[in-house]
Amino acid sequence: MLMSTQTRGGMQKGSISKYRPFTPIVLPDRQWPSKMITTAPIWCSVDLRDGNQALPIPMSVEEKLEMFDLLVGIGFKEIEVGFPAASQTEFEFMRRLIEGDRVPDDVTIQVLVQAKEDLITRTFESLRGARKAIVHLYNSTSEQQRRIVFGLDKPAIVDIAVRGVRQVKELVATIPETAITFQYSPESFSLTELDFALEICEAVVDIWQPTPEHKIILNLPTTVEVSTPNIHADQIEWFCRHLRDRESAIISLHTHNDRGTAVASTEMGLLAGAERVEGTLFGNGERTGNVDIVTLALNMYSQGVDPCLDFENLPAIQQIYEKCTRLTVPMRQPYAGELVFTAFSGSHQDAINKGMAALEHSRSELWDVPYLPIDPKDIGRTYEAIIRINSQSGKGGVAYLMESEFGLQLPKAMHIEFGKVIKQLADVRGSEILSNELYTAFEQEYLLRGAPFKLVSFEGRTVLSASGNEALECVATIAVDTVIHEIRAKGNGPIDAFVRALNQHQLASFSLSNYSEHARRWRIHTGGRLYPVANAAGTLLWRSHGYQY
Amino acid sequence: MLMSTQTRGGMQKGSISKYRPFTPIVLPDRQWPSKMITTAPIWCSVDLRDGNQALPIPMSVEEKLEMFDLLVGIGFKEIEVGFPAASQTEFEFMRRLIEGDRVPDDVTIQVLVQAKEDLITRTFESLRGARKAIVHLYNSTSEQQRRIVFGLDKPAIVDIAVRGVRQVKELVATIPETAITFQYSPESFSLTELDFALEICEAVVDIWQPTPEHKIILNLPTTVEVSTPNIHADQIEWFCRHLRDRESAIISLHTHNDRGTAVASTEMGLLAGAERVEGTLFGNGERTGNVDIVTLALNMYSQGVDPCLDFENLPAIQQIYEKCTRLTVPMRQPYAGELVFTAFSGSHQDAINKGMAALEHSRSELWDVPYLPIDPKDIGRTYEAIIRINSQSGKGGVAYLMESEFGLQLPKAMHIEFGKVIKQLADVRGSEILSNELYTAFEQEYLLRGAPFKLVSFEGRTVLSASGNEALECVATIAVDTVIHEIRAKGNGPIDAFVRALNQHQLASFSLSNYSEHARRWRIHTGGRLYPVANAAGTLLWRSHGYQY
Repeated sequence: MLMSTQTRGGMQKGSISKYRPFTPIVLPDRQWPSKMITTAPIWCSVDLRDGNQALPIPMSVEEKLEMFDLLVGIGFKEIEVGFPAASQTEFEFMRRLIEGDRVPDDVTIQVLVQAKEDLITRTFESLRGARKAIVHLYNSTSEQQRRIVFGLDKPAIVDIAVRGVRQVKELVATIPETAITFQYSPESFSLTELDFALEICEAVVDIWQPTPEHKIILNLPTTVEVSTPNIHADQIEWFCRHLRDRESAIISLHTHNDRGTAVASTEMGLLAGAERVEGTLFGNGERTGNVDIVTLALNMYSQGVDPCLDFENLPAIQQIYEKCTRLTVPMRQPYAGELVFTAFSGSHQDAINKGMAALEHSRSELWDVPYLPIDPKDIGRTYEAIIRINSQSGKGGVAYLMESEFGLQLPKAMHIEFGKVIKQLADVRGSEILSNELYTAFEQEYLLRGAPFKLVSFEGRTVLSASGNEALECVATIAVDTVIHEIRAKGNGPIDAFVRALNQHQLASFSLSNYSEHARRWRIHTGGRLYPVANAAGTLLWRSHGYQY
Repeated sequence: MLMSTQTRGGMQKGSISKYRPFTPIVLPDRQWPSKMITTAPIWCSVDLRDGNQALPIPMSVEEKLEMFDLLVGIGFKEIEVGFPAASQTEFEFMRRLIEGDRVPDDVTIQVLVQAKEDLITRTFESLRGARKAIVHLYNSTSEQQRRIVFGLDKPAIVDIAVRGVRQVKELVATIPETAITFQYSPESFSLTELDFALEICEAVVDIWQPTPEHKIILNLPTTVEVSTPNIHADQIEWFCRHLRDRESAIISLHTHNDRGTAVASTEMGLLAGAERVEGTLFGNGERTGNVDIVTLALNMYSQGVDPCLDFENLPAIQQIYEKCTRLTVPMRQPYAGELVFTAFSGSHQDAINKGMAALEHSRSELWDVPYLPIDPKDIGRTYEAIIRINSQSGKGGVAYLMESEFGLQLPKAMHIEFGKVIKQLADVRGSEILSNELYTAFEQEYLLRGAPFKLVSFEGRTVLSASGNEALECVATIAVDTVIHEIRAKGNGPIDAFVRALNQHQLASFSLSNYSEHARRWRIHTGGRLYPVANAAGTLLWRSHGYQY
């Protein structure tokens, strides 16, 4: 259908020869694979620049301002706000931020500029009046870019960077009221020969003259992801180990996701010695996107490392993000996706059920629930949707939902029995069973059956027994088919008394195998209503109708 | 807005203590970081099992059959088709496959079953009549699962596996017509102590008695992704190095994407010695999904490694996948996403433009275009949508689109001039400029201006000059404002003759600075039409209208 037999089972032989493997780095004594991430890096959001430039409909100035406030609220202390020399929109946004005094004291805005004289001049015009800023200068350095795009040799490419940083240094002197941090990116670092990347960075360092107190930021972008993350880590470790005056530089990562491994590349780059990460919320950005900072931060969080970013209300963050970017966070996106705290399979549901029960019982503060890497509540999500019932679900999931949704703790034997009822229903249906349907099935199986017995009324009062002990006497009216019986007996509680009454009046041979008391659960409903569904000895159940919120 | 000042800049201090870092593996002499992926692994699709069980609406039997045919067409030789003991739907699907003779000779179907007696019995019932199959037995082995879910110690957990494999071995003897390969998964391997994972796998191996000719598959799942991919690789390398009788086993990976690093974990697991990969198309599966085999395969392809799977018509595969699963492939998904072969920024567009021109010029077979890791054409995608124009786009992108969409090679000077026109338009608009709008702007700027000259007619004929050489004489009718002029001159070609005529008749002081001839480009349009937009000396341009397909 899709392919001829000659190509079946592989890509066309002819086209594979179009590609070559990435040349690995020789670093046999690499240290990063034995390292751990123990502290958060310096985060820099590039949502308003790299993210925004990749949107089919770029954000308006108003939307950029809303996004800026969101990023500040999350706790970003460095935010790349744009490429002010690239367009009037970008320039005006900078002026709005500065003139409107929108930048908190502890936040530094960052501006990107290519190493070109007129663009650098324009960029500094956009900075007038800012308290502080990071000026982020770049030029492209890879062999491919030198040959194809610039037609220049290495010294000429170094010269572009050197002239750029000289001009920046001169312009910085003209705005003493603004504290400038300088950042340099050898763009396309991932495809640049390591020794040349080092050479050009050191040439820039020689002009800028950073110190351990006033460090330079050297940002080493995976402009295009071209190798496995371990090779990226080797590149970063090699660079960190060879850089002169390492303590005067902050090594920064800026990864893209072309091979689907931006998160791993960033994590291994941190192991390899980098100290700063540029990325975006939910991985927005050119092509496959920048690295997703939400995932990176919550990966750290899940290992007990404070990410120093606040994603405690991730759904609210997602909502603003989706509004401003007009993008949608995918359903299976780690942490944020709609389905990631949902388990469908029976064994998973059963394990989660047991894990939650064990956690509550142990009162341990350590999160320890199978199939849920973190507690969804920590990021503003809930267990509500964890379990859905389809033909693959087991009894555990069904029992869990009956309890969590309706407050009904089913006896063990009933787990199996009712589990089978639901599995049959799901097999016939072929699609998911919603929780209100689950209740309907329960009701039909257990509550609405044409049973001969009906409890009409029940009254209990404390009395003294012959021996002087307190007992409870019940007086109940029972309809058996259409005949009304008043029954009465004493017991050590209302249930006991009721069972004795049933037996003593020979209405039934009745024994109590399991008892649990269910608190009435009140829920707020949209367009639904609450009504009683069963009225048994001492226990009133309420049926909920409609969807909870 | 989202968070109180006390929590700003980090997750609540109280909740971080809920989590502990994953304990790393001690493997200082690890070999995997220096390895390369040089061949494709054995691929096993779990779309019909792990993928299907995680769908809000599971596939119908008909949809499963369509998906099965798709997987066969792509070239999968091992396909996990379900969990036949889990439900009637799953069981019936197996029977349809076998009784309908849907399984090609070179494809092996795989069935999953938990190590439980009744489930194993039922699974073998589903296999009756199959030529061959992989029986995939699992039980959960992690400390967390042993304690919380099973309440069993290590020997009891080993016993579950051992009893399971014994039963399988007995049942295999009853169906000699079916060639059974055996696969065992210590489920939750990623959280299992390595020595215990080894112990239980070797206990299973001892019963099954595999040989190098009839290997056992040992599948080591990252049921939940709980560590960075380098630690996963350490786990796999440790296991491969310690396993007795290594050459009688195929080590298989089954990764999930909870930390967004399933692709990296799989790639590093392969470096660490694994030989087989279970995953799904586009990463469907429980929670964050299984590893995406499309990305894995095309990552290999991009490095010149034949993935032995055919994704040459990825859009068609995606269409069937989306129909059967009712899921959508995200816009930034590597290789498949709508936006991944699109560049918005000016410098990227310019570089791609130059890269494509250089590639065409060099006639090299090596793909070498900046910002495009692979040639989109290799997977059935096109350059058509690579460049969109917004306020961040540069002249290069505009020029590229004018040529690729309309066949107009603009002179260099015009790149800059027309680039500015478009940037102004985009700045005012604040949104993307579509290619037909680009043409409208070009037309208004250059073709529809109220210029005094209009070419009414043009005729050229070859004549002999006084010196006996061939020349071209043109006779043209020109309207200057409302006055009609017939002009005539000779030249070495039609353009030269026309320019001479203009100058000789003193209608204009005209010189030719740039000339390029544009072939008429015919396109198929939906609801559009083709019509001429300009009629200049010897060149006829056609304006396209509407969207191309």
